[in-house]
Amino acid sequence: MTSKLTSNHQKRVSPAPDAAGNGLLDRRALLGRGLLLAGAAGAGVGTSLTAAGAEPLPVDPWSLAPGTAIPPYGVPPKYESKVVRTLTNPNNEPRTSQARTPHHLLNGTITPAGLHFVVSRTGFPDIDPAKHRLAIHGLVKQPLVFDLEALARYPMVTRVNFVECGGNSAPLFNKDPVQANVQAIHGLLSCSEWTGVRLSTLLEETGIDPKAKWLLAEGADGPSMNRSIPIGKALDDAMIALYQNGERIASAQGYPMRLLVPGYEGNMNVKWLHRIKLIEEPVMAINETLQYTYRVAGPKIWQFFFPMEVKSFVTHPSPGLTLKGPGFYEISGLAYSGNGRIAKVMVSADSGKSWAEAALDAPVLPKALTRFRSPWRWDGQPVVLQSRAWDEAGNIQPTRSEMFAERGEPKVNVPVTAFPMGHMNVITSWAIDSKGEAKHVYG
Amino acid sequence: MTSKLTSNHQKRVSPAPDAAGNGLLDRRALLGRGLLLAGAAGAGVGTSLTAAGAEPLPVDPWSLAPGTAIPPYGVPPKYESKVVRTLTNPNNEPRTSQARTPHHLLNGTITPAGLHFVVSRTGFPDIDPAKHRLAIHGLVKQPLVFDLEALARYPMVTRVNFVECGGNSAPLFNKDPVQANVQAIHGLLSCSEWTGVRLSTLLEETGIDPKAKWLLAEGADGPSMNRSIPIGKALDDAMIALYQNGERIASAQGYPMRLLVPGYEGNMNVKWLHRIKLIEEPVMAINETLQYTYRVAGPKIWQFFFPMEVKSFVTHPSPGLTLKGPGFYEISGLAYSGNGRIAKVMVSADSGKSWAEAALDAPVLPKALTRFRSPWRWDGQPVVLQSRAWDEAGNIQPTRSEMFAERGEPKVNVPVTAFPMGHMNVITSWAIDSKGEAKHVYG
Repeated sequence: MTSKLTSNHQKRVSPAPDAAGNGLLDRRALLGRGLLLAGAAGAGVGTSLTAAGAEPLPVDPWSLAPGTAIPPYGVPPKYESKVVRTLTNPNNEPRTSQARTPHHLLNGTITPAGLHFVVSRTGFPDIDPAKHRLAIHGLVKQPLVFDLEALARYPMVTRVNFVECGGNSAPLFNKDPVQANVQAIHGLLSCSEWTGVRLSTLLEETGIDPKAKWLLAEGADGPSMNRSIPIGKALDDAMIALYQNGERIASAQGYPMRLLVPGYEGNMNVKWLHRIKLIEEPVMAINETLQYTYRVAGPKIWQFFFPMEVKSFVTHPSPGLTLKGPGFYEISGLAYSGNGRIAKVMVSADSGKSWAEAALDAPVLPKALTRFRSPWRWDGQPVVLQSRAWDEAGNIQPTRSEMFAERGEPKVNVPVTAFPMGHMNVITSWAIDSKGEAKHVYG
Repeated sequence: MTSKLTSNHQKRVSPAPDAAGNGLLDRRALLGRGLLLAGAAGAGVGTSLTAAGAEPLPVDPWSLAPGTAIPPYGVPPKYESKVVRTLTNPNNEPRTSQARTPHHLLNGTITPAGLHFVVSRTGFPDIDPAKHRLAIHGLVKQPLVFDLEALARYPMVTRVNFVECGGNSAPLFNKDPVQANVQAIHGLLSCSEWTGVRLSTLLEETGIDPKAKWLLAEGADGPSMNRSIPIGKALDDAMIALYQNGERIASAQGYPMRLLVPGYEGNMNVKWLHRIKLIEEPVMAINETLQYTYRVAGPKIWQFFFPMEVKSFVTHPSPGLTLKGPGFYEISGLAYSGNGRIAKVMVSADSGKSWAEAALDAPVLPKALTRFRSPWRWDGQPVVLQSRAWDEAGNIQPTRSEMFAERGEPKVNVPVTAFPMGHMNVITSWAIDSKGEAKHVYG
């Protein structure tokens, strides 16, 4: 319903000073009433009614009939059937499956459990929670086994944290920009409210042998997915997560329990957790030798490099979300850091030549997704949109040239599902053409 | 798995000083490592392994087989089939339906969309989002109509807010304590992350005639559910909500859009919103005359009394969640206020004779559910658990006698589904007997 767009646009948009090139407006326009829509940046895309009551709204058929019964557990509206994870292995062949979160179709910061990303070596196991056990053994004073009933008696904590696959955003290693949307490029990232028992609480029950420097966390899935975790992280903010967004964690997120190591590579947040063994040295598991070890420039290798670095990307607009003509839009996206809170997000509409600071939705939580928003007046000409994030630890999201100076220039194009490298956090660029269509570019 | 309970309990629990009667421990035991489990309050309910490796865990069948395919949209694990809303009208007869949130089976603060409470006069309408319109008219300068595409261009905001039915907790008006669980008593309450367009943003587009003091909000459902909202609330924090916990709002929560008036009676958060008319006086809708008007003591009537008052209740333990013998437990529950943030929650294990301050999970957000937690060592004797909340506006959750001094003593027992009165926020009491079973009492 944009028939009145041009006239409303021309009438309402006043020459308020821009905060940066190509129409980026000051974020303060979003924060206070009376500022934004005093003619400065109104979208002006509502359709006029000739007069109140003189042109009644049509009475829609759903207003004339009884409704549908409320179900015991609701499912998404049938009109939202395209809001789903994309699957790399829908027939569950004997290989890794990836399911990606559709961030371009979501808004806010929480990911519904049904849309949380998944990387799994063999689907998800069908674990009977009454029979599942968690053992803590190795370099402890008293090895202990816990079932769900025992864990329910311990003090719990609730925290919002993102989980991101170490290989998320790997398509940005491609020599040429892959033509894919935000789900394909950044969809191995999700954010939930997690509730569970601190691992430190359980380790105080078992006691810790001073020789213990690492722990092995192992899942009850077929491949016994395992990773070595530094004992310091276990005593800091690691959690045995039992609930996700209020309810028991989803089957594909580790039901009935997973390890949560906030901010660390997704793979270390071991799902279907059934064993923690305290040890002196890392076990050199396949997921820390063959996988999740990264070649960098020259002879250097990154191994046991855990926190996911500061990153941001624009979700609206992005490929597949076409702008409907010039005028006001909100540029919005997600920012996060495995090292703490987001301190600042800057947005550019001219491929990084000039930047405006975005507004951040409160509360800005550590190691959680933060939604940023920036008001923008598009003049209908081609632009390149970018975002760049700063975290409270002082880290800055790198440009492509900054990252590749350290890690070596990418020389190949590989299929989008088969990238060998991880910890990719460079700036993402969307080129908007004069038709309003967004395309991935290296800006 | 509690076979070692008694011996562990005897071995591990040291005579740390209690914070209040019947075993309530200081909340600081939850906050710092090294405090809680240095023998002070450890649950000690893990089962001992004789030695690391000497008694290997059984290999469960799910560890020996490939897993199930990851679906495009996940559903809860089959073992959680009892974690559902209870329905008062499962056959969708032509009367009001209530669906209640199972707070005793959840943890954290977010309610999954599929478990959000519902009160509806006729199920939910099947609205085609491409055809749905929101009209804003009446005492405005330019009446406007918005479709979803137009709304998507406006600045949005994300906020966590609870919604509570004005009639939630009404069973506490009964003369005698109803024998029901937390879902039946307090289940018309849920909390989501909501994202949408501020109503003030749209009203700056239409302009406001200075004569406008109220607005009529009307739904597109069969009964055209409507309420009068003060214009001050519309300009303060009211939102046209489009997303719930990241995805489009649920069918039963008003898909494709609802009015959100944070902290106000649930009924005013008009679902399936299709019309807002600015007016001089409230319309005296059925939901503000026959319903949601409250008789108080003597000749007084409460009408247009909107904010839901400060309240708290214990979810763990509560009826249906039986304690498995003496020892350490965490008392946990929910607190909230329609007037802002929760300032403090106190917990009692001796029916209000003595109180200990509970820990609050961060972040404590305004007009949102806050999870409180209190460490507790149960000696196996009968106790009465209570919680009491304070909000930042200075309001204190009342005792039964304080409330009924103002509103008149309840004189009748009525069916649990048919309570005529609302805004019930007195302290809830759970009596735990020596078998560990919880029962609703007037403490």
